[in-house]
Amino acid sequence: MTQPDTPLLDRVAGPADLRGLSDRDLAQLAQELRAEVISAVSETGGHLGSSLGVVELTVALHAVFNTPMDKLIWDVGHQCYGHKILTGRRDRIRTLRQKDGLSGFTKRAESDYDPFGAAHSSTSISAALGFTVGRDMGRPTGDAIAVIGDGAISAGMAYEALNNAGHEGRRLFVILNDNEMSIAPPVGAMSEYLSRLYANEPLARMRSLAEGFEAALPEPMREGAKRARQLVTGVTGQGTLFEELGFEYIGPIDGHDMSQLLPVLRAARARATGPVLIHCCTVKGKGYAPAESSADKYHGVSKFDVATGTQAKSKPSAPSYTAVFGDALTEAAARDPRIVAITAAMPSGTGVDRMAKRFPNRVFDVGIAEQHAVTFAAGMAASGLRPFCAIYSTFLQRGYDQVVHDVALQGLPVRFAIDRAGLVGADGATHAGAFDIGYLGALPGMTLMAAADEAELVHMVATAAEFDEGPIAFRYPRGNGTGVAMPERGELLEIGKGRVVREGTDLAVVSYGAHLAEALAAAEALEAEGISVTVADARFAKPLDEELLTQLARHHRGLVTLEQGAMGGFGAFVMQALARRGAFDRGLAVRNICLPDRYIEQAKPEEMYAAAGMTAEDIAATLRGIAGAREGRVLPFTAAG
Amino acid sequence: MTQPDTPLLDRVAGPADLRGLSDRDLAQLAQELRAEVISAVSETGGHLGSSLGVVELTVALHAVFNTPMDKLIWDVGHQCYGHKILTGRRDRIRTLRQKDGLSGFTKRAESDYDPFGAAHSSTSISAALGFTVGRDMGRPTGDAIAVIGDGAISAGMAYEALNNAGHEGRRLFVILNDNEMSIAPPVGAMSEYLSRLYANEPLARMRSLAEGFEAALPEPMREGAKRARQLVTGVTGQGTLFEELGFEYIGPIDGHDMSQLLPVLRAARARATGPVLIHCCTVKGKGYAPAESSADKYHGVSKFDVATGTQAKSKPSAPSYTAVFGDALTEAAARDPRIVAITAAMPSGTGVDRMAKRFPNRVFDVGIAEQHAVTFAAGMAASGLRPFCAIYSTFLQRGYDQVVHDVALQGLPVRFAIDRAGLVGADGATHAGAFDIGYLGALPGMTLMAAADEAELVHMVATAAEFDEGPIAFRYPRGNGTGVAMPERGELLEIGKGRVVREGTDLAVVSYGAHLAEALAAAEALEAEGISVTVADARFAKPLDEELLTQLARHHRGLVTLEQGAMGGFGAFVMQALARRGAFDRGLAVRNICLPDRYIEQAKPEEMYAAAGMTAEDIAATLRGIAGAREGRVLPFTAAG
Repeated sequence: MTQPDTPLLDRVAGPADLRGLSDRDLAQLAQELRAEVISAVSETGGHLGSSLGVVELTVALHAVFNTPMDKLIWDVGHQCYGHKILTGRRDRIRTLRQKDGLSGFTKRAESDYDPFGAAHSSTSISAALGFTVGRDMGRPTGDAIAVIGDGAISAGMAYEALNNAGHEGRRLFVILNDNEMSIAPPVGAMSEYLSRLYANEPLARMRSLAEGFEAALPEPMREGAKRARQLVTGVTGQGTLFEELGFEYIGPIDGHDMSQLLPVLRAARARATGPVLIHCCTVKGKGYAPAESSADKYHGVSKFDVATGTQAKSKPSAPSYTAVFGDALTEAAARDPRIVAITAAMPSGTGVDRMAKRFPNRVFDVGIAEQHAVTFAAGMAASGLRPFCAIYSTFLQRGYDQVVHDVALQGLPVRFAIDRAGLVGADGATHAGAFDIGYLGALPGMTLMAAADEAELVHMVATAAEFDEGPIAFRYPRGNGTGVAMPERGELLEIGKGRVVREGTDLAVVSYGAHLAEALAAAEALEAEGISVTVADARFAKPLDEELLTQLARHHRGLVTLEQGAMGGFGAFVMQALARRGAFDRGLAVRNICLPDRYIEQAKPEEMYAAAGMTAEDIAATLRGIAGAREGRVLPFTAAG
Repeated sequence: MTQPDTPLLDRVAGPADLRGLSDRDLAQLAQELRAEVISAVSETGGHLGSSLGVVELTVALHAVFNTPMDKLIWDVGHQCYGHKILTGRRDRIRTLRQKDGLSGFTKRAESDYDPFGAAHSSTSISAALGFTVGRDMGRPTGDAIAVIGDGAISAGMAYEALNNAGHEGRRLFVILNDNEMSIAPPVGAMSEYLSRLYANEPLARMRSLAEGFEAALPEPMREGAKRARQLVTGVTGQGTLFEELGFEYIGPIDGHDMSQLLPVLRAARARATGPVLIHCCTVKGKGYAPAESSADKYHGVSKFDVATGTQAKSKPSAPSYTAVFGDALTEAAARDPRIVAITAAMPSGTGVDRMAKRFPNRVFDVGIAEQHAVTFAAGMAASGLRPFCAIYSTFLQRGYDQVVHDVALQGLPVRFAIDRAGLVGADGATHAGAFDIGYLGALPGMTLMAAADEAELVHMVATAAEFDEGPIAFRYPRGNGTGVAMPERGELLEIGKGRVVREGTDLAVVSYGAHLAEALAAAEALEAEGISVTVADARFAKPLDEELLTQLARHHRGLVTLEQGAMGGFGAFVMQALARRGAFDRGLAVRNICLPDRYIEQAKPEEMYAAAGMTAEDIAATLRGIAGAREGRVLPFTAAG
């Protein structure tokens, strides 16, 4: 692979080296940085478009602000590849998102230039405000700068932070990285606010800036940008939301034009006394034609060929769980006109786009707004609709109170489709779907399922579609299915009933969800050693199949629970149910295999499960460990409820 | 007690009866309703001020809209007493917030006129939008009307909902009940928008309306209303946030003047095609002088004397946990200048107002914004400060993702002070602090404590103040302490170590938090029966004192865990730890006493714990049940990690 020619970048050891460069050299450096980002991501895959969109902004911010004393906080953080290259991590940039490599997001442990880790959206302004309070209370920290996209700023959390930051009135910088739309410049307002900020600048400079802005702004506005535009410009074109919340507003400026970026940032840094919002328009994928022309396909990419833009996608052997869900949902929706679907800015990620193709008016994308998504679904359910609320496990944490208070407590029939359950691979610990079993299973009235394979997922969608007695959730992992034969049509599962997948006599494994294959492999391994292992698929974490659990406990010398989730989840519920039934009174060798009590760093999912001690061999070792724990015949225990 | 004279109200069996009354009678009815609310709440206690503020609005909404086919959704719901009286629940209004009585909030199970339950703030617009989608998809439901206060609308969730509702463009009514401030009327804008809406009204009518508004609006603006005002009116006075988000904006109008309310609501109902926001200014406590003059003290009241306004407050025998926390925090803050405190609109509820008296610049009230509160605290911690984030257990659910992603995953030293843990009394199931042990305990790197009494709370504040290795949380119940002797100064507890409070030989109880007294009482009861019970206070749910647990398991015939929280919490963690150590292999009679798998309805806390099966007698019964489960000498088990 040809490395790009980057003479200026090669001389940059860190951001301090940028501060001696001319504006022209900085513009040149940005181009070299762009080439390096394209080259690196072509080898590793990753969030190419976002990083290309902020190349100039990255160079300009590091050139103008005094990082790392000044705290530069990238919202979400997937646009940080250029930032990583400039901040001493160029030598590792080709390890991005790989095991033992650089994180795909900013990460405190990785660099002093990453003051606040990210990956979930809309946290940057809150964190930045925290740093400004620290600064004002004498902590050794400089300015705080949050860089947030127009999508992320639409989340309630960002609004809460703007609201509070405006109230606090502390010196703080928010860069609105507006890359989803082109904005017709409200030139009057912009000139007015720029005039205020640049009051001390020579007039000629001001005018040339203003002229530059207008020329630089693309047009016309895209369809779908209406909501975002309304966020930014007042209906009358005179006030902006940000000003109403107490911010100085500067913009919009062309985020790819260093001759705009550098003076605006310098002036803001020199003169700001309170919170300032700088509105930069950028183009996702800027400077790489394949990424610019299809921003969606290049949001996250696999390895690709730089010359052609062709992404290396291996042909999957089985459909993805996401696709299976999307198709099963569409079929259910065809049968029941009450079915609707809700996503929080992830139509293709969750697969509800498949339903939207056929039933566009029954799929609701509410934006990055998980809290609203859940209660909106609850309201629909209360009206008699049957909503499927499709949110990744890690993001459903954002709507937890709404699940508790608006759905579960009211017993409303909202169906939660929880994709990305368990460990997810390159996105690492921040995206792990580790906690949903526990945080949902504790709620009275909740019904929880997990799919052992993609055929099971089809059954669970069908089961959820028919379940009207309250909320129901089903979880399934990221990636492709196991390749099992697919049913013609989903069957209705009996609520709270598991299934025995493999019959044995000595020990039992009860698995919840997609680690069933590992359980079966472990059982095979022990069979060869003369230990006979039953394997059951619990299907439900709530209600538990206590009858099955009791039988397994009664007829085996030991019992192992297995799940792709944290402590306090399925295994914990099994333990508490068995304790209530007195299953331990006379002895039962029992172990829980679940995610360990530490965060598992990015790698391939199978590598992450290996790091978690959850391979088939690990399961086999646990089984061996209890095989001798209780000798002789198993005594029956009293199955009192 | 004298009942008020309510001739019109006495003839109202339900909202349908309002629709035949003249406007003058409706105004009269509102006065009678006000008198009835005051009379009822004087007997029961409750949220008096909020309900008095919306008496006219309540009458007007039911008179104009076709409830219950039209869905009237009261945000938070604590302003619903008049609504309950009008909707067939007058005969039970004096049972408000009591065991087996009416809920203090709206509740679906209670009435068809409560289409969506509430209690946590800022959910109403999301739910109302859900109903409008149901209506537009043919479900048998009419218009949806959300009534939301100016405090609640500042939460991110409400913003997400406005943003989505504006985008959807469906016919929907939001009543902004603005009771914290007086607003100088932006008459130009108001006239403009009213003109649009009233285009078909006779001109004279319009003019008289507009004149009425101006005269009706109180002045001057109160301090502290700045933020709320910025929400509502643009800096330039020409656009409002609501219009920017796609709403028609009407107002502000006087929410106590039926001659404004009725025509505005009728016109809006007759003509709206999309989302409409009606901005009503009301006075909290309106019409009852003691409540009007001190809205804060009358937000939630005890029983009171109607003539004098004097509230019946019994002299507590011990300080409240909240006060103990506030004072201990203040002392810690005096010793460590890095300590700051954060509250989400609950300075007195959480006790941080005590610290604010001494260190006003180190206490941050961010408004109803739990998501921001947590990440703001994380940012402060990253800057080197030592934040105490004081949020009730039930409301911390709103910031769960931020605890996971911004605090725990980064290992930042944020200290969570979790008041209202366990069952809370009159506020009922919606306010129960049931789930925090489980949802926090599952997080790697979290440290969790629970206070057995108010002296323990002092130690835990001191311990948290010194703990720098990552996040730490401590929970404590609502209400007064147990009356134990208070320490001069908090001691540093050893992290992850429990204590044996009572030594016995047969059985052991390990208690986590404030149910320790019940455990001790149960042990006393069994002592009298010849069964000797050890009682331990775990102090920590994470890290667990596994050594203590192992010893308790080894030296007793049975073990009971006890906590004021749901399944999947402390007991579950104990079970999983003991399983890992093989404690059950040879038999251990173990039971977990925790909140049952159902929601516990409002009553006094002790009644709620009785309903939950968690009295001292219940604990004693559980102990008796396992006393004979395992005979003879206890065998040691291998304490392998």
